[in-house]
Amino acid sequence: MNYPSKLIAEAVAEFKRLPGIGEKTALRLVLHLLKQDEAKVARFSQAVEEMRNNIQTCRSCHNYSDEELCSVCSNPNRDVAVVCVVENIRDVIAIENTGTFRGLYHVLGGIISPVNGVGPDDLQIDSLVERIAKEGVEEVIMAISPTMEGDTTIYYISKVLQAHKVKLTTIARGISFGGELEYTDELTLARSLASRMPYENYLVK
Amino acid sequence: MNYPSKLIAEAVAEFKRLPGIGEKTALRLVLHLLKQDEAKVARFSQAVEEMRNNIQTCRSCHNYSDEELCSVCSNPNRDVAVVCVVENIRDVIAIENTGTFRGLYHVLGGIISPVNGVGPDDLQIDSLVERIAKEGVEEVIMAISPTMEGDTTIYYISKVLQAHKVKLTTIARGISFGGELEYTDELTLARSLASRMPYENYLVK
Repeated sequence: MNYPSKLIAEAVAEFKRLPGIGEKTALRLVLHLLKQDEAKVARFSQAVEEMRNNIQTCRSCHNYSDEELCSVCSNPNRDVAVVCVVENIRDVIAIENTGTFRGLYHVLGGIISPVNGVGPDDLQIDSLVERIAKEGVEEVIMAISPTMEGDTTIYYISKVLQAHKVKLTTIARGISFGGELEYTDELTLARSLASRMPYENYLVK
Repeated sequence: MNYPSKLIAEAVAEFKRLPGIGEKTALRLVLHLLKQDEAKVARFSQAVEEMRNNIQTCRSCHNYSDEELCSVCSNPNRDVAVVCVVENIRDVIAIENTGTFRGLYHVLGGIISPVNGVGPDDLQIDSLVERIAKEGVEEVIMAISPTMEGDTTIYYISKVLQAHKVKLTTIARGISFGGELEYTDELTLARSLASRMPYENYLVK
């Protein structure tokens, strides 16, 4: 597309680089920003730049953080004996928003995926083993998506952790709350039949 | 949602202010930016801020512009005798991208809309009349969306221009190319029947 202004063309080009933003959406966002006060737009662009320049990764769990230790790791009320292993920060946010988990996290930074060229050495697995050895971790919960690659990652970590005295669990797989049986895929249905649970557990929230 | 980092929370809040961007999308964009080089993110935020700080409106047509006169108005190859009146810059871009219009534009900055509190005085109508008086304009094309408010705006401008010797036209209304007759609304169909044209004109591109 041709734009009457080079400034607009450049801003549109920058927005277009973001995932899921096409040219028309980029233009809509740019024209919206043009209608705002200069101070508001400055706040927008500064928030983005400051975030990128000042963000750190927590030296313990590799979550994004403002400090050397993230807010979860530095919280004295969290249970250090339980570590929940996740793929990325999005999963941390999702679990934190359930408001039910009181342990710590360990962010792998991805999952093992030969297709995408991601091997165990690209992930934070060594630092997980180190934490388990040092910090008195009793249970490691694998909260990894139940895909082929996720299952491979869980299997790999389970092998690595065999040498350590630690309980390894995975989050439950089954039919979602509100999910309909007849539309559930066979694998999920078969697995949730095989790992059926006593009705008393079902009632516990 | 809770975020492990205040920096992330602030950037998400800023993205969320943009139209059509919800919290999940904002987070996706922010996490994407966190994975980019600092230089790339700086380029993004600078493009946005520079655009907002340096943009001008063309003193002739009120289009957004990098200079005092926009690239269309300052182009000596454009036909100054034809002025196309549009609602906003988006329409300028759309018409420019057809590559078929060689005249100039006049951006009203909106359309008359009592519901939204927009009256004729809020639009660039006086400056249009001034241009017509001064610049030897022969034809004014109203390229305004055929809505109630658009039609009101066209009617108002037609009254204002009655005192001036200028040909007033509107863009053709009818069925879109590729549009299906049976799904066209009655008003459009009735209008396009009433303003039917000789077959020779239909063949001209």
